[in-house]
Formats: sequence, structure tokens, C-alpha cells
Amino acid sequence: MKVPKCGNLLFIGFMGVGKSTLAKELAKELKTVCLDTDKIIENMENKKIKNIFSTKGEEYFRELEQKVAIWLEKNVKNSIISTGGGFIAVGNLKKIGKIIYLKSSFDGIMKRLENHPKSKEKLAKRPLLQDRKRAKELFKRRSDTYKKLADITINVEKYKNKREMIKELMKLFDTNVSSR
Amino acid sequence: MKVPKCGNLLFIGFMGVGKSTLAKELAKELKTVCLDTDKIIENMENKKIKNIFSTKGEEYFRELEQKVAIWLEKNVKNSIISTGGGFIAVGNLKKIGKIIYLKSSFDGIMKRLENHPKSKEKLAKRPLLQDRKRAKELFKRRSDTYKKLADITINVEKYKNKREMIKELMKLFDTNVSSR
Repeated sequence: MKVPKCGNLLFIGFMGVGKSTLAKELAKELKTVCLDTDKIIENMENKKIKNIFSTKGEEYFRELEQKVAIWLEKNVKNSIISTGGGFIAVGNLKKIGKIIYLKSSFDGIMKRLENHPKSKEKLAKRPLLQDRKRAKELFKRRSDTYKKLADITINVEKYKNKREMIKELMKLFDTNVSSR
Repeated sequence: MKVPKCGNLLFIGFMGVGKSTLAKELAKELKTVCLDTDKIIENMENKKIKNIFSTKGEEYFRELEQKVAIWLEKNVKNSIISTGGGFIAVGNLKKIGKIIYLKSSFDGIMKRLENHPKSKEKLAKRPLLQDRKRAKELFKRRSDTYKKLADITINVEKYKNKREMIKELMKLFDTNVSSR
């Protein structure tokens, strides 16, 4: 797989699937910097995501995501970027970089979050996970979009651990990454 | 003043002087995105700055700052960037963008932090502010470097509020910014 000229690698997938964790690992492996769209938004607004949702609403948050997406497309290259679960709604996703979709079953994601050492925190910070039934519906709706947008799909449930996923990604990037 | 080709504007100055706050305001004014080098590092390490200092030490943190500095120089443009107080030690600062130095007396900074609604948090998160006497010595040592590196100096104690500082900056950028 060829890494695009802009060199960005963008992780997408449902909230809690491990995008941010894997992005950090990959950035270390590739000796580059990783960004997280949620963290950029939290810094710009000086508020946690859940507080942006509760005070300004989801629509406002989606506008910020679009703003960040345009900024990324125009001004950032050679970076690893993890995104919020709904970031795929931005209009220019494919222009930002190659898309890596972290795929998992809904139950797999919930299990991952519930078994996490910081489980309570991980669950609490995600406003759209509060209602489990609605979250599952959202998961179903989004899954097709993730699939359509993906350049690479990593089925996280097939791997023993993060290292295995990184190995697989490095294999896929092949020589294109080593020449960056 | 001409905004450089890369278009980045980099805020430097002693910790607590208000770099991050002003960077956010300016990003809103210029309808762009702001980054914060400390936040990028916290995301990459998945740890708060004070925990990076306590577990890995200052030297390790400075290496991360250098890594981020090189990444910014090579891969980011048209952005507003706030930095940690010691970020000026990186070797390529001037190559990242135009440097805006927020200047204040040491007492002015301490007053700002102590009068802040989140005063306790603002003070606690800065490991190098814990010993007031040593912090003042650090302030003296760094002040000359800030001055030497600055393309623009904003003496924050001369302004009534953030809005006035933004106005002054916009005047300095003149027509160069409006054409970005």
C-alpha cells in the first residue's frame, strides 16, 4: 500500500475501539508525532468533550470537527491522526490521508472498555456511550460508513495485542513508510 | 510585519503568562486551529506533564519537546502554536514560525495565576513553579532568551485584557494575515 504524498495516516472506527492507543504506538514506531482530533478540540475550547456536548450541543461539536478536518487537510502532513468516532461525517476525510479503520464487534468494544484499568473514566468521557441501546444503533449505522471509507481495515479482535496490529500495519506500509 | 510563508505563529514566554489562552483567542480571530506543545506531548505520552516530569524526568521531557519542534517545522503550517515555558531550548525554534513573546514581570505572572478562578490547578500542574525562589531564578535566566528570539513582544501588563492584546496583534499582522 502506498502512503499518500501528504503522508498522514488517519485512524477511524467506533468510539472505544482503540484508535488513540494504536495511533500513539504507531507514532512511536514511525518516530513521528500523533494528533488526536478530540484533544485538539478540547484544547481549542478549553473544555472536555463531554462538557462541549452538554453546554453547546453535538451540532456545535460536529462543526468544530469539520474545522479541524479542513485544517488537517490543508496544513498538516506526515502525521498519525486519531479521530473521534463521528469524525467520519466531515466532508473531506479522504483528502486528509490514508484511512485505517479499526473494526470490532460492538460487544468487543464494550468488553475492551469494561476490562480497561481506567474503565470508569473511559466510559464516562463518552457522552454517546451513556445509553447502551442507542450506542448500539449508532454503531450499526456507522459501520457501513467506516467500511466504505477505509483504505486499510484492521479487525482488532483477530489480534492478540497492539504489537501484533502494529506489525501488521508496518507490513502493509511496506517500504513506502521506511522511505519517509 | 510579514507573516512567514509557513504561516505559523508561535507563542513563547514564561509559564503562566497566558500563552495558551491568547493562542486560543487568536486562533478564533483568525479562524484557524491552535496547537499546544504541552498538550501534544501529554497526548503522545498519555500522561500529564507533571507525571512525565516525576516519572521520566525533565531531560526526557525536553527530548519530546525537540521531537515536537522538528515535527512542527517540517509538517505544520498556518497554525497558531502555544508552547511550554522551556520550549525555547529547542534548536529550530525560529524555523517553526514567527515568534510572539508574551512578556511580564515575575510578580505579574504570579498575580495572574493566583487570581485565576482555577488558581490551584494552574499552579499545581507546573512542576517548575513549585519552588518559588528557583522559579524566579529560572525566570531571570530565560528572560534574555525570550527577548532575543522574539519577532514581536507583547508586554501583557500594559493591556487591560485579552481583547486589547488581540487587537494589537491584528494591527501588527496588518494586511498580511487577512490574505492568508
